[in-house]
Amino acid sequence: MERTLFEPEHELFRESYQKFLAQHVAPNHEKWEEQNIVDRDVWVEAGKQGFLGTAVPEEFGGGGVKDFRYNAIITEETTKGGFSGIGFTLHNDVVAPYLLELSNEEQKQRWLPGFASGELISAIAMTEPGTGSDLQGIKTKAVRDGDHWVLNGSKTFITNGINADIIIVVACTDPDKGAQGFSLLVVERDMPGFERGRNLDKIGMKAQDTAELSFTDVRVPAANLLGEEGMGFFYLMKNLPQERLSIAVVAAAAMESVLESTIQYCRDRKAFGKSIGSFQNTRFVLAELATETTAVRILVDKFIEQLNAEKLTVQEAAMAKWWTTEAQVKLIDRCLQLHGGYGYMKEYPVAKAYMDSRVQTIYGGTTEIMKEIIGRSLNL
Amino acid sequence: MERTLFEPEHELFRESYQKFLAQHVAPNHEKWEEQNIVDRDVWVEAGKQGFLGTAVPEEFGGGGVKDFRYNAIITEETTKGGFSGIGFTLHNDVVAPYLLELSNEEQKQRWLPGFASGELISAIAMTEPGTGSDLQGIKTKAVRDGDHWVLNGSKTFITNGINADIIIVVACTDPDKGAQGFSLLVVERDMPGFERGRNLDKIGMKAQDTAELSFTDVRVPAANLLGEEGMGFFYLMKNLPQERLSIAVVAAAAMESVLESTIQYCRDRKAFGKSIGSFQNTRFVLAELATETTAVRILVDKFIEQLNAEKLTVQEAAMAKWWTTEAQVKLIDRCLQLHGGYGYMKEYPVAKAYMDSRVQTIYGGTTEIMKEIIGRSLNL
Amino acid sequence: MERTLFEPEHELFRESYQKFLAQHVAPNHEKWEEQNIVDRDVWVEAGKQGFLGTAVPEEFGGGGVKDFRYNAIITEETTKGGFSGIGFTLHNDVVAPYLLELSNEEQKQRWLPGFASGELISAIAMTEPGTGSDLQGIKTKAVRDGDHWVLNGSKTFITNGINADIIIVVACTDPDKGAQGFSLLVVERDMPGFERGRNLDKIGMKAQDTAELSFTDVRVPAANLLGEEGMGFFYLMKNLPQERLSIAVVAAAAMESVLESTIQYCRDRKAFGKSIGSFQNTRFVLAELATETTAVRILVDKFIEQLNAEKLTVQEAAMAKWWTTEAQVKLIDRCLQLHGGYGYMKEYPVAKAYMDSRVQTIYGGTTEIMKEIIGRSLNL
Amino acid sequence: MERTLFEPEHELFRESYQKFLAQHVAPNHEKWEEQNIVDRDVWVEAGKQGFLGTAVPEEFGGGGVKDFRYNAIITEETTKGGFSGIGFTLHNDVVAPYLLELSNEEQKQRWLPGFASGELISAIAMTEPGTGSDLQGIKTKAVRDGDHWVLNGSKTFITNGINADIIIVVACTDPDKGAQGFSLLVVERDMPGFERGRNLDKIGMKAQDTAELSFTDVRVPAANLLGEEGMGFFYLMKNLPQERLSIAVVAAAAMESVLESTIQYCRDRKAFGKSIGSFQNTRFVLAELATETTAVRILVDKFIEQLNAEKLTVQEAAMAKWWTTEAQVKLIDRCLQLHGGYGYMKEYPVAKAYMDSRVQTIYGGTTEIMKEIIGRSLNL
Repeated sequence: MERTLFEPEHELFRESYQKFLAQHVAPNHEKWEEQNIVDRDVWVEAGKQGFLGTAVPEEFGGGGVKDFRYNAIITEETTKGGFSGIGFTLHNDVVAPYLLELSNEEQKQRWLPGFASGELISAIAMTEPGTGSDLQGIKTKAVRDGDHWVLNGSKTFITNGINADIIIVVACTDPDKGAQGFSLLVVERDMPGFERGRNLDKIGMKAQDTAELSFTDVRVPAANLLGEEGMGFFYLMKNLPQERLSIAVVAAAAMESVLESTIQYCRDRKAFGKSIGSFQNTRFVLAELATETTAVRILVDKFIEQLNAEKLTVQEAAMAKWWTTEAQVKLIDRCLQLHGGYGYMKEYPVAKAYMDSRVQTIYGGTTEIMKEIIGRSLNL
Repeated sequence: MERTLFEPEHELFRESYQKFLAQHVAPNHEKWEEQNIVDRDVWVEAGKQGFLGTAVPEEFGGGGVKDFRYNAIITEETTKGGFSGIGFTLHNDVVAPYLLELSNEEQKQRWLPGFASGELISAIAMTEPGTGSDLQGIKTKAVRDGDHWVLNGSKTFITNGINADIIIVVACTDPDKGAQGFSLLVVERDMPGFERGRNLDKIGMKAQDTAELSFTDVRVPAANLLGEEGMGFFYLMKNLPQERLSIAVVAAAAMESVLESTIQYCRDRKAFGKSIGSFQNTRFVLAELATETTAVRILVDKFIEQLNAEKLTVQEAAMAKWWTTEAQVKLIDRCLQLHGGYGYMKEYPVAKAYMDSRVQTIYGGTTEIMKEIIGRSLNL
Repeated sequence: MERTLFEPEHELFRESYQKFLAQHVAPNHEKWEEQNIVDRDVWVEAGKQGFLGTAVPEEFGGGGVKDFRYNAIITEETTKGGFSGIGFTLHNDVVAPYLLELSNEEQKQRWLPGFASGELISAIAMTEPGTGSDLQGIKTKAVRDGDHWVLNGSKTFITNGINADIIIVVACTDPDKGAQGFSLLVVERDMPGFERGRNLDKIGMKAQDTAELSFTDVRVPAANLLGEEGMGFFYLMKNLPQERLSIAVVAAAAMESVLESTIQYCRDRKAFGKSIGSFQNTRFVLAELATETTAVRILVDKFIEQLNAEKLTVQEAAMAKWWTTEAQVKLIDRCLQLHGGYGYMKEYPVAKAYMDSRVQTIYGGTTEIMKEIIGRSLNL
Repeated sequence: MERTLFEPEHELFRESYQKFLAQHVAPNHEKWEEQNIVDRDVWVEAGKQGFLGTAVPEEFGGGGVKDFRYNAIITEETTKGGFSGIGFTLHNDVVAPYLLELSNEEQKQRWLPGFASGELISAIAMTEPGTGSDLQGIKTKAVRDGDHWVLNGSKTFITNGINADIIIVVACTDPDKGAQGFSLLVVERDMPGFERGRNLDKIGMKAQDTAELSFTDVRVPAANLLGEEGMGFFYLMKNLPQERLSIAVVAAAAMESVLESTIQYCRDRKAFGKSIGSFQNTRFVLAELATETTAVRILVDKFIEQLNAEKLTVQEAAMAKWWTTEAQVKLIDRCLQLHGGYGYMKEYPVAKAYMDSRVQTIYGGTTEIMKEIIGRSLNL
């Protein structure tokens, strides 16, 4: 299916990002997988070439264009290459909106130039060891003490957790106010009391650093409060749809990519004297997967348009999140099966996709949480 | 989700068709279900109000606008009302393109006025008792004899088969030419040798007459050849995508309608002291179905646009056909389950939908045939 | 797979029941479907030949053998013939245990001879219009008044509801006692105030009378109390496993029967010049269904053995109930699909099975209730 | 469900094997995962304690009892501990029957003592880089040359491939005889021309050495021919059912083990202020999985009995293979999801099970090949 989402300027952008990946990422990714983290210089190079903070105003060194299609292109190409280690999508799609919409002028000047240049790698810390998707259960606490907030608590599953220079931490600032008692504080590298735990050993996404963070009496300057005190949840709710659509963009791209390589495999590979693609079962499986990939692509592109028009609802984002990622996981599983024994060998892209993708239905809000959100909106 | 497919003039058309249904169809449909056929006067009334042949040129009494969105509106509203007996969709979506694009001036004058007025009910006869979706296996034969074709054979599963006044019959006119040996002949009511068999006893669609037809030495005038001799298959291939999308339009509308009534049922119905909608399982099932309904709707609306722009491919139509109808059948099955014992009672709309819908994955090309079409296009 | 469940005496019993079906049921079932109820004389004939009350002591005219394998044979053969109208299974598997285990000597003498001879058709009335599977929500009330209970309330979905001569009614006899406040009362034909409502119009099981019953100040003699006052729920809990396994016996037999006829259909039916069974997709679908049918058969036979040894737990019966019936519904759906257009025609056994079977996942406790029972037993 | 398969002597055997695992395997398995191979001394210890070759006659140092229940116990306990690296099951279940049934007296004396003592680790080499499950496509060739066979070819995916001392190689000994042209040759460590390739890098089963093997003009003594020349295929066909059931034994045990740990996790883990097991969705998912685990267990135990009675058919073994392994993969996937983010962390057993299990539907004959075998037996 021909996509109608993009204009010529987007395609130029895609080409230049493809070149960047070929030159700076592809030759290193295997090494990064072994060391479980990417080298920081790939961030700086990406910043130099304009792939970080496309929505950041030009005065701060960004692209100056708020158009999620650019974000989508970065995510799509990163995904298609299997470069699951580089955390640009988290930086651009998830963190950027907080900094752009909530920071005051002083904060903008402090953070945005580094954000756009790749010298300031970002992360956001919501999940805690005991909470999962239950944000109201957040126990990390910040108590005001003069010009500072004294922060205590721990977070886990934090993408870019080791490399990050600035981390937006969701903390409870007033336990008596329920959902109105949470605020966002920006913790910076080297603040005393801020420690990073293990780089977590995951099934896949080996080059992506994912860490536990702990905060012990960290004195965060009041100037690092992002937005208004007590509005943390409101900000999360506002920005989660974009994060979720971003994950759906990964799903759609991964489906297209794995499907394409599997079709090629089924054309080339022989069994019983003919290509395995010539068996009716293979043909039917691939026809089903091609259909589902098309359906996912149509939905994702439609929702990108809606997001750009500020018309994507919380429910629609939840639908996109769970439905596309479940479709992705299923597709990869079936494509792996079509590879037979080779599907179980890590050198095959489908095996890597299998290990990388399994978390898609979990992070950013599990499938179950998405169904809760949708279900509640039906006023049952 | 707000649909963006329609313009204000479409919505006016929808309202007037809703009124027509309320006035002329709703009060009679149960009776028609009992008699297994609709009364012919509903066709005449529909013709009078402009619901037949919206694409037929105005000079022949039609709407004069080739815009599939009008077809979709008729199909959607008919489906939502559960009025599975009235065969307007077959007439407008499936038969009309053959008459409009293939008939010569003389034929247009003979058939189009009645087609648009509802006095000439149409049908198309492809399937044969021994062939199913295997069109190349068609055995009905027509042999040229002077100014006539002498037609012999039998057809089955013919929608509008009892009521039809004109029937486009696919026949083999030259067995030596393979796929180039088939032609389309228009058989008219009362031609000697043309007989209608039983009105078939189906699981559902009780008011829809579906019949076996037989042709014994029927002398069809050469003037009733539609398009060119030997081009029959080509015409079918060209028109099947619209037929298949039309079935997908039914699927999307049925899903929306059954989902809506089931949500209402789950709000109202109590068990264990609370509404059954308040159980997490119900909420999750409905969230899944709401998501799938949204995905189906987005795909169908997108493909309607493509059809109008003459950009819908054979593969895409096949994807829409199988994927939406399988989703429809599954959704109705799960909604029936949520109704408990009441779901098995014919008076509930979900039970009627269950019986009406099961043929959707079969006619117009089975799910299996659709997967073959898609699979082959992948060049495996 | 060869079954190891039965002894030679069971096979003799099976043969004689097959003869009974061929002679007394097969020739009439279509007529019964039209009249929505079976003729009473088939019950009398079944009683005469020893197919009712195999577990009833010989002194009351029964078979005198408590062995569920006989029940299973009756259910299997009835199911395989598609004779969904005759309510022997409800009589033998569901009602009999109440009468045999709870009735006192006087009651036994009053009811068992007729029960075994087929002159006293039985039913059991649990479900109410507002309750479904929520037994604790039962509103039918019985108030003691001298030597009688005054019964008020209504029941629905009652199998054998029109034909039944004696009906075990679950009623609340002490609203203050919660689960200990329910008792079983036997209502007999012609008791004043007992009325039967409509014979319900169902998707399938057309020859099976299923009715609403209403009780308005029905004076039920105290001598018609079955078992002890207040123990109703306990009795239900004790007997539901057998009822549920009985439904699983239907599921297994239906799967075997529909699979067999579908395999035959796929051998005979041609498409594209070869039998449809020779297509890989057909072969794979049938291989999957054959496997699932085997798995269901093994589980059901194992559980019949456990039931006979009084070792079948509530959880296992719930597992058998939902898992086999969901497998049955799915199998029939897929077999229907393999029939193409013919699958939608009522004359084909698969179409009848489709309509008859859909209630299997609902009555006797829905799939959802079964999962609740199992889930709770996991002590989560 | 209480299993009825075992006698007291089996349970004693199970206990002693559990002790062996706790003492000799559990403390080392993580190290073996890192080195991608187990230490040979665990084989010797297993041999000393009687866990290798239970079916080998006592005169050769084996257990002297041909009873697959002992094999099943070893496989079950190994699986439950997550000890996917030790290849005893391949040795006992797959290789042993060839040696026991086909070897002559001289061969028995040469190989069986080491086989039972753990000093002779075994493997079997069927699959080739280009063939997968298509055994007739085997290209490895052996040409007779005096008292030797000259062997050339390569094999892949060979379990125990690095550690093995003796390897049964399936080779074509007469290309003109089709299926009658294959023979089994035992290749021994250090035969010139036999080389082992890489220890393959797999998704899981990290401690299990899986290798490519190559044979270049390897001179295999004629005395190493196993069974008769040309009968290789016949021997494979005869022994594959036991291999497939053995894989099903893994599946059943893995399901029970992962389900149990997941239930425990759902009891302990809190979200939104309660245990996640108390959510209805969790309860339903676990109820479904508990049911499927029970069904799988019943089928596997039944088929073990049939195997012991030499009544397990090729079709039944194929059913067990695909159905139980697909159920296993699905169960583990859903259990992983219930763990949320922790499910993606390798330290959790469910994550390890996820990576270890994915090959189950592939090796020993893929799900697709199993369906072919079953489908063909239906005579479609």
